[in-house]
Amino acid sequence: MAQINRDRIENLRREMRREGMDWYIVPTDDYHISEYVGDYFKSRAWLSGFNGSAGVLLVGLTDAYLWTDGRYFLQAAAELKDSGVTLMKQGEPGVPDIDQFLKKNAKGKTIGYDGKTMSFSFGQKIKNALRDSETLYITDLDLVNRVWVGRPKMSEEKIFILGTEYAGRTVAEKLIDLRNELIERDCDAILIPALDEVAWLFNFRGNDVLYTPVALSYAIVTKYSAILYISENALDGNLLSYFEMNGITVKNYFKVYEDVFALKGKTLVDPNSTNELLISSLPAPVFAESPVRVAKATKNATELENIRIAHLKDGIALTKAIYWLKKSAENGEIYNETEMSVAEKWTEFRKAQGDVLELSFDSIVATGDHSPVIHYEPTPETDRKIQEGFLLLDTGAQYLQGTTDVTRTVSIGKVDRKMKLRYTAVLKGHLDLAMAKFPVGTLGNSLDAIARRPIWDIGLDYNHGTGHGVGYLLGVHEGPNCVRRMAPGAAYGLPLKSGMVTSDEPGIYLEGEYGIRIENLFVTVPVENYPNFLTFDMLTLVPYDRESINFFDLSEEEMRYLESYNRNLLEKVGPFLTEDELAWLKEEVTF
Amino acid sequence: MAQINRDRIENLRREMRREGMDWYIVPTDDYHISEYVGDYFKSRAWLSGFNGSAGVLLVGLTDAYLWTDGRYFLQAAAELKDSGVTLMKQGEPGVPDIDQFLKKNAKGKTIGYDGKTMSFSFGQKIKNALRDSETLYITDLDLVNRVWVGRPKMSEEKIFILGTEYAGRTVAEKLIDLRNELIERDCDAILIPALDEVAWLFNFRGNDVLYTPVALSYAIVTKYSAILYISENALDGNLLSYFEMNGITVKNYFKVYEDVFALKGKTLVDPNSTNELLISSLPAPVFAESPVRVAKATKNATELENIRIAHLKDGIALTKAIYWLKKSAENGEIYNETEMSVAEKWTEFRKAQGDVLELSFDSIVATGDHSPVIHYEPTPETDRKIQEGFLLLDTGAQYLQGTTDVTRTVSIGKVDRKMKLRYTAVLKGHLDLAMAKFPVGTLGNSLDAIARRPIWDIGLDYNHGTGHGVGYLLGVHEGPNCVRRMAPGAAYGLPLKSGMVTSDEPGIYLEGEYGIRIENLFVTVPVENYPNFLTFDMLTLVPYDRESINFFDLSEEEMRYLESYNRNLLEKVGPFLTEDELAWLKEEVTF
Repeated sequence: MAQINRDRIENLRREMRREGMDWYIVPTDDYHISEYVGDYFKSRAWLSGFNGSAGVLLVGLTDAYLWTDGRYFLQAAAELKDSGVTLMKQGEPGVPDIDQFLKKNAKGKTIGYDGKTMSFSFGQKIKNALRDSETLYITDLDLVNRVWVGRPKMSEEKIFILGTEYAGRTVAEKLIDLRNELIERDCDAILIPALDEVAWLFNFRGNDVLYTPVALSYAIVTKYSAILYISENALDGNLLSYFEMNGITVKNYFKVYEDVFALKGKTLVDPNSTNELLISSLPAPVFAESPVRVAKATKNATELENIRIAHLKDGIALTKAIYWLKKSAENGEIYNETEMSVAEKWTEFRKAQGDVLELSFDSIVATGDHSPVIHYEPTPETDRKIQEGFLLLDTGAQYLQGTTDVTRTVSIGKVDRKMKLRYTAVLKGHLDLAMAKFPVGTLGNSLDAIARRPIWDIGLDYNHGTGHGVGYLLGVHEGPNCVRRMAPGAAYGLPLKSGMVTSDEPGIYLEGEYGIRIENLFVTVPVENYPNFLTFDMLTLVPYDRESINFFDLSEEEMRYLESYNRNLLEKVGPFLTEDELAWLKEEVTF
Repeated sequence: MAQINRDRIENLRREMRREGMDWYIVPTDDYHISEYVGDYFKSRAWLSGFNGSAGVLLVGLTDAYLWTDGRYFLQAAAELKDSGVTLMKQGEPGVPDIDQFLKKNAKGKTIGYDGKTMSFSFGQKIKNALRDSETLYITDLDLVNRVWVGRPKMSEEKIFILGTEYAGRTVAEKLIDLRNELIERDCDAILIPALDEVAWLFNFRGNDVLYTPVALSYAIVTKYSAILYISENALDGNLLSYFEMNGITVKNYFKVYEDVFALKGKTLVDPNSTNELLISSLPAPVFAESPVRVAKATKNATELENIRIAHLKDGIALTKAIYWLKKSAENGEIYNETEMSVAEKWTEFRKAQGDVLELSFDSIVATGDHSPVIHYEPTPETDRKIQEGFLLLDTGAQYLQGTTDVTRTVSIGKVDRKMKLRYTAVLKGHLDLAMAKFPVGTLGNSLDAIARRPIWDIGLDYNHGTGHGVGYLLGVHEGPNCVRRMAPGAAYGLPLKSGMVTSDEPGIYLEGEYGIRIENLFVTVPVENYPNFLTFDMLTLVPYDRESINFFDLSEEEMRYLESYNRNLLEKVGPFLTEDELAWLKEEVTF
């Protein structure tokens, strides 16, 4: 591998010299700053060999650097080996961020990148670091395109309409709300480049991005008009009439770059989801978090009913899947399975439930010392036989009724005292966060310590957020809601609102030994009899690993909560199990 | 009262018209943006009649407004009655901040204030809100001075040297560290207007500000020189030679305004503790949190030894004081005492311990429905007889060995079920925060929810921070360390460090009924056997209110922690008590 990447980077350098560039930046993003990007946009991975979902490559004329976060330190170290690319561990002491690195090494030089793949905020960060220096920028050239032989085509798969029985609200209703927001904020238009926001607003779904049923598209909504920019090949006659019926004009995907120039009056735009080239073309941008993002994150009653159906299907599938794991552990067959074959098996259990469009992300199935590699995904190169110990499975699916994301750590064979101690600490953090009651107006960040506390109590911590928002048949990661540790200096955003769906996934990772993570999704709900208080209601219906729990380490409240969770699980999932499965589940959840 | 204030504000308006001002801003600050200010600087209180420690008065030609925070809503409402000043409750829904208010009402108008009493950051906030508008500013006129007949003189009390046996480190050592900071940050000088920072850096204390033993002074430290700006009347011959010996040049207090103009090279300055006039005079300011602030907050070994002595004295005094309260409650004498007489009594108990310079803030002694008034301070007008129920006492002193700040809520007479439930919830939050273990690098803000959680669990909350830093024989409130709820949009500062002293004071306040607050000071310390983890060690040695505790509401850990706290209390304080007091304390702390 490594030699291929050396050659690709050398070819890029040839083009850099031709254009007189000293540094070329290759972000992970597509033109929409999406989390998961289509193959066409995987320039950073193609060049460097690092396949993680987050990272920025910086290529100099003689050296190259890749920045990524704690989730990917181990994976990146492995994938960058011998590529000539230096790994920069974001947030580690002594490691400068890319803007600080460029401040030191790019003053007065020429920096290049494709402005369509650079988020505005990221571009500003770099330019601020280098301000008052004579640095030049060339941001309209996609150099990778010149050297990428056999680059995949840009996707233009057919889209489909999501009926109101799933979406809950009509496009007309959503447009009324959005236009009221525009008036409230004294704006004339809004530019929406975020793929999931466009799909949500116009009630359609697509298939241009793996794991996220969206289509490459933009939207511009004014007080009087709504325009969808998308490839003609993604549409058919029915769709055109559907959009027409809803007062939506359809234009070619690339036409947006001309149209933004012509926008009259103030245009609301979210700097975090918009590429630099688009914003620099806007006559009068007004920067704010996208109101569509918040509306989308606050699920309506229909969406929530469907989401519960999706989690019931997911719960039935994974309960059967865990039963299968446990039995094959007993009869030893599990040791002939590999991480990928188990992932395949779990996908089958899910598909058997119906209405599954695709998975919501690459299945994480990690055995042995793969399990502490946060976000490890088995590949043919890394796949291995299942070993005794903790098996970590972080998987999810896109059902017509909603998006799921569940992590269970399942013990295979013997569980020693320390494994139990640590599993129970993670479970305590997971339950404590779910039980939390908090006043309206509380930031998710404020709750992060509640999940970490039992883990801190045993002298451990985890290097990732505790919770992320989850879309409805959209991105498995969406904002603004989250539960994350606060970073010094950073500013924090929007309070948790009733109807937001968020993950709850503390963990413990011991490099070279094993990793533990437990993840459910829950929805924010009001607290009965507590005016102006909110709490969480669990959506996920999958049993925890009974054999790994130290029951005497649980507080009374945790025990009570766990018992009611299990009662509910048995009542909902039980009826859909075979006799053997049900007998086993009863064993698992009654103590 | 109210009529006097109406007249004073009218006189101010006369001067505003004369200068062509539409709005005049009167902040609470002195020239050093101090929390407590000398009488000379109490313009806002003199004009409006509101005596709280935080608030901003805005006077228009026909109307006037006062902004203050949750601690003072009730007090301000009372004190502003009939003054013609409208109370603006900061942070309440629908209440604009002063900058937003001015944005609406001062566009194109003329705003005046005394730039020496306006913090730079506050001034910027206002100017940002009004930018691109034709607003004019007149910031070099102290209009209040023209109308304030009989204004007190500016204080210039004698200062004294704090020996190394108390300060722990010599001025020479502190200057070396500070100059290293300057070099590290590539600065040539630092301007220090914060009174406690000047006093800490030069190892002296003063008496110009009530409750804070500091002197009106500024410091400028360059790589080669150190200058102290202070009134000649505050010094005597010995002091002059002390400063000379330490390479410190002494200049007149007001000379600083000329000298800053002449400063060569980059000058480090903290925008939060520096007034606007000073900063606007700096040729090349570099804005950063003051390194002196952080060094001062991180107590050295000698300071910590002394602080433990101060808390032992405080513990003996308050244990005796609570014993006295409980006995006089039994024999009914307490009902002849008033809030102020009890405050007096507590001060006597403290003074009896020796080395007390003064109190560290106005004693809060609140009975009946005064107790939910956060930061209520009894005055001759409000003083009342002690009633049955919760008596809330928040008091502290300035010992040569350190600054104390303790709150106890003492039950007088019967305690009903709900009182116990709520007292215990506050105690749980107080203990949970003290027990917290957390990784190095954690912000105090991240821990705030740990203290609130048990209070949230019963559907209540409190409208103030959980903890503030405490100085060494300096301000009872100091930064950067704190434990506060995060506000949306705000950015958060510095992680907690070993050696920082912070308060732990959750509460519950039921307007019209009663208030509960429990406050100890603790110091951040490393955790044995947990590399890179920190926790807290309690400094305060005062018994909690046994009769108000629901022991079966405490978790095992809380119970264990409370028992060890009490054992330590008994062992340290016991030997200094009378037989009766000791017998009672044993009763109180053994269960």
